[in-house]
Amino acid sequence: MKSKLLLIGSLAGIGAIGAMTLMAGSINEKEAERVALNQTPVVAEVDKNKSEEWERYYPRQYSSWKKTKESSDIEDLIEKKPQLAILWAGYGFAKDYNSPRGHYYAVQDNVNTLRTGAPIDDKSGPMPTACWTCKSPDVPRLMERDGENEYFTGKWSRYGSEVVNSVGCADCHDSETAELAISRPYVDRALLAAGLPTFKDSTHQEKRSLVCAQCHSEYYFKKTRYVGKDGIEKTANVVTFPWAEGLTAENMEKYYDDINFKDWTHKISKAPMIKAQHPGYEIASTGIHAQKGVACADCHMPYTQEGAVKYSDHQIQNPLNTMDRSCMPCHRESEEKLKGIVKQKFDRKEFLMEIAMDNLAKAHLETGKAMELGATDDELEAIRTGIRHAQWRWDYSIASHGSFFHAPEETLKLLASANEIAQQSRLKLVRVLAKYDAINFSAPDFSTKENAQKLAGVPLQKLIDAKMEFKATLEKAWYKEAVQKGNLNMESREGVDEESSYFKK
Amino acid sequence: MKSKLLLIGSLAGIGAIGAMTLMAGSINEKEAERVALNQTPVVAEVDKNKSEEWERYYPRQYSSWKKTKESSDIEDLIEKKPQLAILWAGYGFAKDYNSPRGHYYAVQDNVNTLRTGAPIDDKSGPMPTACWTCKSPDVPRLMERDGENEYFTGKWSRYGSEVVNSVGCADCHDSETAELAISRPYVDRALLAAGLPTFKDSTHQEKRSLVCAQCHSEYYFKKTRYVGKDGIEKTANVVTFPWAEGLTAENMEKYYDDINFKDWTHKISKAPMIKAQHPGYEIASTGIHAQKGVACADCHMPYTQEGAVKYSDHQIQNPLNTMDRSCMPCHRESEEKLKGIVKQKFDRKEFLMEIAMDNLAKAHLETGKAMELGATDDELEAIRTGIRHAQWRWDYSIASHGSFFHAPEETLKLLASANEIAQQSRLKLVRVLAKYDAINFSAPDFSTKENAQKLAGVPLQKLIDAKMEFKATLEKAWYKEAVQKGNLNMESREGVDEESSYFKK
Repeated sequence: MKSKLLLIGSLAGIGAIGAMTLMAGSINEKEAERVALNQTPVVAEVDKNKSEEWERYYPRQYSSWKKTKESSDIEDLIEKKPQLAILWAGYGFAKDYNSPRGHYYAVQDNVNTLRTGAPIDDKSGPMPTACWTCKSPDVPRLMERDGENEYFTGKWSRYGSEVVNSVGCADCHDSETAELAISRPYVDRALLAAGLPTFKDSTHQEKRSLVCAQCHSEYYFKKTRYVGKDGIEKTANVVTFPWAEGLTAENMEKYYDDINFKDWTHKISKAPMIKAQHPGYEIASTGIHAQKGVACADCHMPYTQEGAVKYSDHQIQNPLNTMDRSCMPCHRESEEKLKGIVKQKFDRKEFLMEIAMDNLAKAHLETGKAMELGATDDELEAIRTGIRHAQWRWDYSIASHGSFFHAPEETLKLLASANEIAQQSRLKLVRVLAKYDAINFSAPDFSTKENAQKLAGVPLQKLIDAKMEFKATLEKAWYKEAVQKGNLNMESREGVDEESSYFKK
Repeated sequence: MKSKLLLIGSLAGIGAIGAMTLMAGSINEKEAERVALNQTPVVAEVDKNKSEEWERYYPRQYSSWKKTKESSDIEDLIEKKPQLAILWAGYGFAKDYNSPRGHYYAVQDNVNTLRTGAPIDDKSGPMPTACWTCKSPDVPRLMERDGENEYFTGKWSRYGSEVVNSVGCADCHDSETAELAISRPYVDRALLAAGLPTFKDSTHQEKRSLVCAQCHSEYYFKKTRYVGKDGIEKTANVVTFPWAEGLTAENMEKYYDDINFKDWTHKISKAPMIKAQHPGYEIASTGIHAQKGVACADCHMPYTQEGAVKYSDHQIQNPLNTMDRSCMPCHRESEEKLKGIVKQKFDRKEFLMEIAMDNLAKAHLETGKAMELGATDDELEAIRTGIRHAQWRWDYSIASHGSFFHAPEETLKLLASANEIAQQSRLKLVRVLAKYDAINFSAPDFSTKENAQKLAGVPLQKLIDAKMEFKATLEKAWYKEAVQKGNLNMESREGVDEESSYFKK
């Protein structure tokens, strides 16, 4: 799919290197270059969903984006914190949950996770199409081609040969002007629902966070009835931000309660659960950096100088790796000292997170025991509501991994609140268990991934076997078809599939 | 008691005003004045314990110190948070606990609080002499005169006519050089025990906090055997900072546990309690301002310009009252915006503090109920240890009122930790109560001061009556005697005794 693309030319592009060399050396000349960079348009025809097509116009931005490949570590978080398998029992996350890799891997990580299962054709797979939504600039392309509701209909396997380019240029940039742009329509809908300015009405600095918020936000799949182009009534699972009551954990808890929403019923406790996704934008907004007007891009995409050219580093990563450019323009302490302060924040979060997870896991298991002994839904209703709210607050506060830094106080408050609600449920549970002669019941050991997944009923090896079969067959077919359709250059997949949590086994 | 006092003269002192006027207007002249201010010594004979004697040399510092009189509000915190009476049942704080007034009132507030009771002679009163220790520059005078151990011996009423000048100049300044100085020997002992530099070996900036730390720190009364000048073996209650294991709440908890120390046995739960005093210095050290090298004096005693003279404002108060001088030299936001951020910190603390206090109060009352029904000390031991630790952490985190600002993250972490330990005790209590057929016991209402003090066994009216009798008799005699001895100028007591929590009744 070719589209007219009006790109702002870079003097540093091919053919302009000689001119750049001459210009270097004086502030006035740099200023002239800056003006030129911001004014010279270049028209080109490219497949905007393929980031490699943007390279010729933005070689530095592209090269740095490609370096997100360096964020390649996979940490099996269920191995590290086995309680997670209890907390998410009955939900995909109990199967597999890893620390995130760089943007370069977004599509492959979605394909590889055991959460997305092992589809065998374009109608199977446990997950809906919505699961692709944040992974690729192919998504706005498909929304444009098929219509938003149609895009949000069916199983994710339906788009296996379509969503093949990982998070890239067109996700955050307008292909006509190269300006910052949102590429998902639900973001403006959420901003309007929250009474906030739309993207267009936001400041440039706000936009430097809002493009990130397209994906790094809390969402749920809102069931939406519509009539397709074929005249048939269908149900779309539309990614929706629950911002209508406000952007705090408490606001969203109310939103979900008011519409009686649940992501799943917990397998052990039967509590009606909400899975917090990654409300990074929302929780960061409560922190001191955001309140001082710092945008996501200020730290995660710091301005970088190469010769006479200054550009935003697109190797989005942990700013502790780029402190000279991310932190030092504002802070006056040594990098070492700042790292020490960040470590304190991390340690406090870990301390409270462990406590909250422990009590939550026990609350689930104690509820399960009570049910096994005959406790009724009436007896357990308030307990389950407590578990729902406690786990929501815990999850909200840690699901976007950097919250301990972005908003340490809000994170600690939420973890403490989660723990208090979990403990209130446990206090009630002792009384219910007493009624069924099990007052001294003690939750079984969940201190290893094996034990915890067993308690959660996760058939790990079976899931891995099915996934490996899928990878050897349907997944291979997807990429072949994608190349034939012109959706994919295989070079862009270089090295994406060398590791996962279960390849190691 | 007259002592040679070498004071640095102020050119702005009486007689120098003409010279000052001529000097104003150029930076060079101001620099010359600054050098003069710091170099010209003036020798005078004064009673160093009387701040009014310092006025002629430091008129600005004295005038601003005297303005601490403006911090005159008395807020009855037990009226505001009745849970406090439950938490401190059996201890003085359950009787009376008010928000602190300015330094100008320190002596009178110590005399007035119902905690110090109603002595009838120089050997009575519930409290030891140590209770005066932070209230007055008369204390170092008495330590010098009587010896430190002797000073720490006997009841506080012993020094009623001696400790009469409120916190002032000589508490923090050397009377020979006017330089910053500590006037209490236990501070250096504590620094040494903690492996920290002594006051002398600290930087000037560190000293600008350490003089405050003399009083705004955690302490206990260490029983110390000694032989008096009269040859008799006695026991002193020596103010001691529990810093030997480190300065965090967890460090001090270990210190107190290791020496099996308790401040009192809780009246309702019989738990062996530790009262956190006001570990303001310690908790502030964990916060971002201290870690960035900000001293107490930077915000609470901001530099102030009067004409050509710059001096430290000695009206120590809430820096939100002096934001232009306290905050704005570093921060670039509006005062209003900064206040909004401080409010967020306060609200988060309040939220967690209320939860922790509620669960702690219930844990005490549930333990009391279990005892009433026959629960044994063995059954309650772990519960009481939990209550001890939980209440220590809660108290540590809020006793120095500004901790929510000085160290918001540490404060939230400690409150969360306190609450978790309290809840663990309550989980155990349900099982103990079940054993005694009271599984559904619910703590009685403690939502008013009256109810809470009744549950805590505080005979409020009786305490007030006795105090009023003391104020009409012995207290009056103290000041008369103090004047006769030359310890006190009555003018320095102007307006100190117009208000208390119980005068209003």
